[in-house]
Amino acid sequence: MTRRFIRAAAASVLLCQTAFAQAAGPVRDYRRANEHRILREFVQLLSLPNVASDNEAIRRNAARIVEMMTARGLRPRLLEAATPNVAPAVYGEWRAPGATRTVVLYAHYDGQPTDPRKWTGTRPWEPTLRSAPFEKGGKILPMPTGGEAINPEWRLYARSASDDKAGVMSILTAFDALRAKDIAPTVNLKFFFEGEEEAGSPHLVEILSRHKELLASDAWVICDGPVHQSGRKQVVFGVRGDTNVEVTVYGPVRPLHSGHYGNWAPNPAMTLARLLASMKDDAGRVTIKGWYDDVVPLGEAERRALAEAPAYDEELKRALAVPRPDGAGRPLLELINQPSLNVNGLSSAETGALSRNVIPTTAVAALDLRLVLGTDHRRQVERLVAHIRAQGFFVTDREPTDAERLAHPLVAKVEVSPGGYNAERTPMDLPVSRAVVEAVQKISEQPVVLMPTLGGSLPLSLIRETLGAPTITVPVANYDNNQHAENENIRLQNLWDGIETYAALMTMKF
Amino acid sequence: MTRRFIRAAAASVLLCQTAFAQAAGPVRDYRRANEHRILREFVQLLSLPNVASDNEAIRRNAARIVEMMTARGLRPRLLEAATPNVAPAVYGEWRAPGATRTVVLYAHYDGQPTDPRKWTGTRPWEPTLRSAPFEKGGKILPMPTGGEAINPEWRLYARSASDDKAGVMSILTAFDALRAKDIAPTVNLKFFFEGEEEAGSPHLVEILSRHKELLASDAWVICDGPVHQSGRKQVVFGVRGDTNVEVTVYGPVRPLHSGHYGNWAPNPAMTLARLLASMKDDAGRVTIKGWYDDVVPLGEAERRALAEAPAYDEELKRALAVPRPDGAGRPLLELINQPSLNVNGLSSAETGALSRNVIPTTAVAALDLRLVLGTDHRRQVERLVAHIRAQGFFVTDREPTDAERLAHPLVAKVEVSPGGYNAERTPMDLPVSRAVVEAVQKISEQPVVLMPTLGGSLPLSLIRETLGAPTITVPVANYDNNQHAENENIRLQNLWDGIETYAALMTMKF
Repeated sequence: MTRRFIRAAAASVLLCQTAFAQAAGPVRDYRRANEHRILREFVQLLSLPNVASDNEAIRRNAARIVEMMTARGLRPRLLEAATPNVAPAVYGEWRAPGATRTVVLYAHYDGQPTDPRKWTGTRPWEPTLRSAPFEKGGKILPMPTGGEAINPEWRLYARSASDDKAGVMSILTAFDALRAKDIAPTVNLKFFFEGEEEAGSPHLVEILSRHKELLASDAWVICDGPVHQSGRKQVVFGVRGDTNVEVTVYGPVRPLHSGHYGNWAPNPAMTLARLLASMKDDAGRVTIKGWYDDVVPLGEAERRALAEAPAYDEELKRALAVPRPDGAGRPLLELINQPSLNVNGLSSAETGALSRNVIPTTAVAALDLRLVLGTDHRRQVERLVAHIRAQGFFVTDREPTDAERLAHPLVAKVEVSPGGYNAERTPMDLPVSRAVVEAVQKISEQPVVLMPTLGGSLPLSLIRETLGAPTITVPVANYDNNQHAENENIRLQNLWDGIETYAALMTMKF
Repeated sequence: MTRRFIRAAAASVLLCQTAFAQAAGPVRDYRRANEHRILREFVQLLSLPNVASDNEAIRRNAARIVEMMTARGLRPRLLEAATPNVAPAVYGEWRAPGATRTVVLYAHYDGQPTDPRKWTGTRPWEPTLRSAPFEKGGKILPMPTGGEAINPEWRLYARSASDDKAGVMSILTAFDALRAKDIAPTVNLKFFFEGEEEAGSPHLVEILSRHKELLASDAWVICDGPVHQSGRKQVVFGVRGDTNVEVTVYGPVRPLHSGHYGNWAPNPAMTLARLLASMKDDAGRVTIKGWYDDVVPLGEAERRALAEAPAYDEELKRALAVPRPDGAGRPLLELINQPSLNVNGLSSAETGALSRNVIPTTAVAALDLRLVLGTDHRRQVERLVAHIRAQGFFVTDREPTDAERLAHPLVAKVEVSPGGYNAERTPMDLPVSRAVVEAVQKISEQPVVLMPTLGGSLPLSLIRETLGAPTITVPVANYDNNQHAENENIRLQNLWDGIETYAALMTMKF
């Protein structure tokens, strides 16, 4: 950190604290007076299973959000895709008298699939309070019924507690607070709650295209993802793209006794291990040909923002017990501006109590490929397939026949999930970009972290490509929320902060 | 195949067929007249879940076998280990008037664990007949109630149908047949049915040691494993040893969002892939230092037996859709005389519908190491551990602490299952060896295959080390029985043949 930057930062903190005290006031008062009610409404929403592939369940979520918006006088409606049995988006709007700008506020109400057996002491759709994260000895608490003090360090455990029903709650409660305190929004508000984001938003373009005029706006503000690891609020101008691929490799057509055939029948688990090992070097750099070729380098504003973002790698290393991260010493913030190749999961026969002395018939790796500006998801998958072919595999996109397996010593089935999309990056010097930063800074005690790109993915490229609107992401969840995994949770203070943040955004000017 | 060998084989077939017609007669008549009853008794035994770790279930099996033996006048008893809650062996004996030799007939009544969801159309402990293997379109048939013709090509699907309740049934039904036909056994018979073989026989030595005098004998004949892949009967003089090891490698202490941390947080699935890939070359040869060092080479009799055994590799390649086996072109029979390293299973987070965009916290590989004469199971595990250390891992035998994970970039937990044991090989020129071959040949139309070593494992070294008795294995199951996997089955003709084989062994002379 340079001395000049330290001085600037200190001045900025001082400025923040003054503005902050004024800005947060009425909204904070509202929240303090309504914590029990807010929590009750949130718990009710979190009690609904919300995996995007379960259409009936997802529609119960949409119906609940419609009820919540109706209660706020928003006259919501469902935006359906043309394809049947697709999760609808829930839409509503609020015209601000005299406003010349329109902002769409986005969150998603679906959640990642999860195996309830993997949760520790609580279950995904039975929201439960703990006094702290369970890894730190947090005890299960009774749900407050009214009157009790609510500690903002408590954690609420449930699927989507952070990702991303916290977004829905922050936005709708911010709106409540403004109305209760008679503060008029300064921009027209459009609410858009998506229902299949965790499935890769396969029908988002369809929904956006069908409702182009309804959704006309100057910008989308996206409430998703975690705040900075330091706990500081952040504004994010881009996201990585994402595409999922499952690779299956094959052994003998039936499971074989490992004694009678071991040394002779090729083992698909070993074949898969060798294939995966060929994809990265020991510093975690992808060795697939051309993987980094199309990356658009960061501009000057982005490089400066990265340099000014708090360095948090050392704390992360300790917190996650990761003494030697991938990336040969390059910081996390720099590395997420590169495309990635991640193994989401492996399986072949069984391990543990169900393990048997067998040569399995198949081995499967679930992969996700993250994209950055410039790298096209289809082209990246083609590179992966070319790499697998270069390792000697016959590649197919469906279950190989016995004849194909007999004709090729190495066979890989490569299945690309629908819904892959590219990365997106909004310029940091647009008027709306500056207005968003200013609004978030106004209610923050610490300087807001500006991020050119979030590591995670959202289908933001689809929004700009379809509607022409830029997107800016303002997350609210704690970074240690176990998003996408078992034991997802939100720290209550992050929800409280989220309400203030979104109230500030509803009253920004640009 | 040399011309001389072809002539010898042809002469041998002729000789066999004559002797065979005489030998099989009365026992075959008995079986033909009792097929429905035999099948009913077998189905009843197969209906009992029999995973060795479920002590209550395993004791229900032992009780059933006690009933079966009591009905045969054998006055059975349970041989218990000193350790409580261990699967007992079921023992019984039959003194043959004038006999000077005693043979122990061994089978095991426990079965491998299995996931019922992986079975196709049938369930592990609900024995079901099919008209053929289900992969070849075999249809489910009603269980015969009496009177209907029973096609010997039918398959009976159930856990342990082949491995190894077929052994229990073959032995006990052979005994029935001899008594019914008034044929006296020529050797004293001792029956020993083990209940924890699939768990690696961790208490076999304990049981044998406590009942040394009771179990005194000249030889053990082991009914386990499949006949030769060609369908010919075989006599096996040795088995590989076996030991199971589970290796767990570690990533971050909690599951991370693959977007936010991908490229930075090391992925344990990839770490495991790299570790496994380091253990074998692309021809499947184990690259762990010293892996093949202690192997005792085959003697002349063994090499000759291998040369004379039918070459079946080409048919196996087609049947299993394995165009390029491991072993750089060396035949299966030669390769099973080498130690092996097999991946029984892999797991890390999830694949398929439950897969999420996550960096998993751990990845697990279940391994089994097969041993041959000379390679000690403990020393082989030490070599594996040394190899893992040489790849840079900190190795522990229990769950590593966060501090250990933070102190070491690479951590592997290596857990060795109890009950590993070494290989065993009985000389092929002992009088009992010759008598067994002669007995089995007598009821075989084809020349019997003589195998110095079976690919599979049995704790035969423990028997010789504890009781001093040599062991010879005479399998009955079809080779395509899916033993150790889902959809285990037996071809009825193999059970019928097994009855004749064991009746011949009960009337052998040495």
